[in-house]
Amino acid sequence: MDAERRIRALGFSERDAKTLADHFLDAERRGKRGHGLSRVGWLASLPDLEPSARPERVTDRPGFQRWHGRGALGYLTLDAICAAQIAEPPDDARLVVADRCFPTGMLGYWARRVAEGGLVVVLTATSPPRLGHPAGGPKVAGTNPLAIGIPSKTSAPLVSDVSMGQVTYGDVIAGVASEDELVPFGGPQAHKAFALAVALQLLVDALVSEPGYGAVMFVARPQADPLPRLRELAHGVRLPGDS
Amino acid sequence: MDAERRIRALGFSERDAKTLADHFLDAERRGKRGHGLSRVGWLASLPDLEPSARPERVTDRPGFQRWHGRGALGYLTLDAICAAQIAEPPDDARLVVADRCFPTGMLGYWARRVAEGGLVVVLTATSPPRLGHPAGGPKVAGTNPLAIGIPSKTSAPLVSDVSMGQVTYGDVIAGVASEDELVPFGGPQAHKAFALAVALQLLVDALVSEPGYGAVMFVARPQADPLPRLRELAHGVRLPGDS
Repeated sequence: MDAERRIRALGFSERDAKTLADHFLDAERRGKRGHGLSRVGWLASLPDLEPSARPERVTDRPGFQRWHGRGALGYLTLDAICAAQIAEPPDDARLVVADRCFPTGMLGYWARRVAEGGLVVVLTATSPPRLGHPAGGPKVAGTNPLAIGIPSKTSAPLVSDVSMGQVTYGDVIAGVASEDELVPFGGPQAHKAFALAVALQLLVDALVSEPGYGAVMFVARPQADPLPRLRELAHGVRLPGDS
Repeated sequence: MDAERRIRALGFSERDAKTLADHFLDAERRGKRGHGLSRVGWLASLPDLEPSARPERVTDRPGFQRWHGRGALGYLTLDAICAAQIAEPPDDARLVVADRCFPTGMLGYWARRVAEGGLVVVLTATSPPRLGHPAGGPKVAGTNPLAIGIPSKTSAPLVSDVSMGQVTYGDVIAGVASEDELVPFGGPQAHKAFALAVALQLLVDALVSEPGYGAVMFVARPQADPLPRLRELAHGVRLPGDS
């Protein structure tokens, strides 16, 4: 298909091109154009694109893994991390820290995949500073989304994916929002989204082993299956991530 | 002091009364009246108060602990959990699940304590369903705050503590807000706070081993000390948790 061919032409392997195209096409289907096909041209514009780079798992201990992008795109690093969590789930829980993991796209996409693999997952990732305090001042935090995925034995997982920006930078790239609108969400309570963005920024920055944009994922084996009861309680109300 | 004496009179030990009074007085100092001294009378009104109950650590494996309130107040369960994390930090990271842990007060208070003990911490806890979808429908999630604490070698930690409600239930108890105002925060983007509240609800509900309100804490050893640079970058802007 066209997207894959265009990505292949940038020098990516067939497999990596498919991984990237799948992500961009899923974004288009979900109406998240900022994370969609507009990213192909954006990739082509990156001065330091290394299409043959491979992420590496540098530490693997009970309850903890550290990965390093080694120049690979964040999408491909998260793809490898998700596959590893599903292939070898933790006995109880695991913290996964990804050094040099950028760009990462829609975090909900990766959370959905891990949750479909049967694990509870929490994922965040940093990006260039684009949010400042609602009262003004310098931009100190990325839009730093927080994605949470909850598996269920009887239905699709619940996936929540909340960016702390009122719009995404992807929306700005896609031309559907202006840079001025890129402020913490929440209007009169935007200090809450700002607090989350700053704290998630520092969470990642405190756990990576070298400065740079990174990702932090927690995975755990579920003990219970609370989603069916919640859906019943919600009585048809649309829940996060439902299409 | 008066608060402690009143709590002692409910049957709590001297130590537990001090733990509870410290929490309520800190809330008053921070202007979070809903979590402050109004809670003493509220405790007295609880039909199933068990002042001599003690929380128990039921599982302790590398990277994972499970605790059970065993009838103790959530404040006292979190107090014991915080002390245990600081006394025996994980080699890398640890997930702590607290079954039957309610009420928990200001989560930022516990996050601050763990961060002052040198650990990165993320904490959430569930409470009775009080938030519904911004478009209407049944209440399906608690206000489920998310607290994040980041230690620093050179300054006080950064502590972010964000409730997903526009007001807290504590504010309602304290009479400073009405129950109608207890909706997801964010105005036109309240679906974001709703998504976070629902996902945090399920995160806890999927990890506890018996139904009931619980708490989930992640702790990890920091690899870096990013807070001084962030404060520099923020150039005097007030950061989350600063007084």
